[in-house]
Amino acid sequence: MLSKAPKVLVVITVLSGGVGAARLLSALSGVLDPSEITAIVNVGDDLVLHGLTICPDLDTIAYTLAGLNNDELGWGLSGESWRVMDELADLGGADWFRLGDRDLATHLYRSQRLSEGATKSEVTRELCQRWGVKVRLLPVTDDDVATQFETEIGLLSFQQYFVQHHHDVKVHGIEVLGASAAHATPQVLAALEACTRIVIAPSNPLISIDPILQIPGVRAILERRHHDVVAVSPIVNGAAVKGPADRLLGELGHEVSCVGVADFYRGLLGTLIIDEADAQLSNVIRGRGINVRVTTTIMAAPANARRLAHEVVR
Amino acid sequence: MLSKAPKVLVVITVLSGGVGAARLLSALSGVLDPSEITAIVNVGDDLVLHGLTICPDLDTIAYTLAGLNNDELGWGLSGESWRVMDELADLGGADWFRLGDRDLATHLYRSQRLSEGATKSEVTRELCQRWGVKVRLLPVTDDDVATQFETEIGLLSFQQYFVQHHHDVKVHGIEVLGASAAHATPQVLAALEACTRIVIAPSNPLISIDPILQIPGVRAILERRHHDVVAVSPIVNGAAVKGPADRLLGELGHEVSCVGVADFYRGLLGTLIIDEADAQLSNVIRGRGINVRVTTTIMAAPANARRLAHEVVR
Repeated sequence: MLSKAPKVLVVITVLSGGVGAARLLSALSGVLDPSEITAIVNVGDDLVLHGLTICPDLDTIAYTLAGLNNDELGWGLSGESWRVMDELADLGGADWFRLGDRDLATHLYRSQRLSEGATKSEVTRELCQRWGVKVRLLPVTDDDVATQFETEIGLLSFQQYFVQHHHDVKVHGIEVLGASAAHATPQVLAALEACTRIVIAPSNPLISIDPILQIPGVRAILERRHHDVVAVSPIVNGAAVKGPADRLLGELGHEVSCVGVADFYRGLLGTLIIDEADAQLSNVIRGRGINVRVTTTIMAAPANARRLAHEVVR
Repeated sequence: MLSKAPKVLVVITVLSGGVGAARLLSALSGVLDPSEITAIVNVGDDLVLHGLTICPDLDTIAYTLAGLNNDELGWGLSGESWRVMDELADLGGADWFRLGDRDLATHLYRSQRLSEGATKSEVTRELCQRWGVKVRLLPVTDDDVATQFETEIGLLSFQQYFVQHHHDVKVHGIEVLGASAAHATPQVLAALEACTRIVIAPSNPLISIDPILQIPGVRAILERRHHDVVAVSPIVNGAAVKGPADRLLGELGHEVSCVGVADFYRGLLGTLIIDEADAQLSNVIRGRGINVRVTTTIMAAPANARRLAHEVVR
């Protein structure tokens, strides 16, 4: 029997929020065998609305990886229609959280399966199989957690803050309700232990990644394996690529820069990938004992996304 | 001040199932001021599916009275579309209970309001106001009850029996789970006490009317006021006008005729309205101490429905 040189397998696990993570995972799928990629996904944004259990980050990632994402809107499904929402608005129902007709089918499916006793992990696997998504998507926990904002206008749920108020209110604090009592699933812990590289996606550190890190057991693995942890900074040139990460970092007392990101992840990171626009900050970050790689982190152009993916796995 | 002759007000309360009751209520609305009509509606068919609380009888009546009913299908809303159901079927979801896009908006609205703490009665009032329904619709109870069938293939929920198995399995028994612990709403009891006439719609006695009668307090009022109770037989010439009433009456040991209906309602009825096709049975029913009126009870033609409505209120 012929002996072959052992193939070096880069098996990566990506801590993931929504849109930014979806783009990175999509780019990584072009560079690695998708079955070698596991995404551990934030569920702090999940909500129950109209009786339906909605998992925005899981759905954003799955839709994107399935090629079903709506590029025009920047969220939801392509070829979407709005018959139910229009009728709901006519009834005077709550229509601030826009749910397209195609999207609703996902939530109906999930809600029914959950009511039958399936876990969120199982439902995610079923949906991904149906959509032909090869990347393994794992909700960080099957327990209920809910990110909550203490704001200038009172306590707000994630989607009240993010969608209803367009993240345009001052935030004094963020709490992930239920996190300390939640359990990371065995698959999540195993993926974090078994992979050769852990990636922190360029998602919002405070409201996408931190609710993952707060699930008991997760942070400890990253601390122990920090040499294997690579993060991509979601802050470029002092501003968030998308969403309120810059504003939130500032409001909660962090430096609004990739240095602030490095400090937020202190003790968890081996390497931070920053954008060329921030190259001059490399030495400050290296001064924290963190390796720095500089590349284009804005993934709008496919070639850039691919370059970033290569940088993440090299 | 000029004294006027007092106007005799016929204020009627109608125990109601779905389609048959909806037609009668619609016809009654043409004969009486709709605001003088109260429908006490069965909720034993209600179900939670895909996380949504669905009230088929309440919706059938409201849609019909609002002029929104789908005549072609015989259920649901006119101008309906099926985008969500088609997508759900693509996902491999449970699509045996067909929910149109317009119809879904009703269930989303209701489910959200219930989750906010509204009662089924309150949600019904809100929806009816939105649709311009003047007849007062009251779910018999705001508590959870569920009609369950003991069949040759095991226990089935109402909609499993009715929709999934097309009421084509042998039934050994029917139970209304939760009925004995449920509370009729104060509005229901007040309507039954205050009206000048109680009508039992030509709905299925076993699975539409009996789940109303089983809510504590309701049967007792009908027994005491039986002289004021008028029922319309849903059995004509030994067959149900619609649905499985004939088969169920037979399977559960009742006579499959308007006499069987009279016997089923024994002690509760002052008058039974039967179809001309059954005129020869009048004396048998009168022998039970129940008045009989004979007319056309098939409401397909508007003139017939109107004649029946006049017979009910005269």
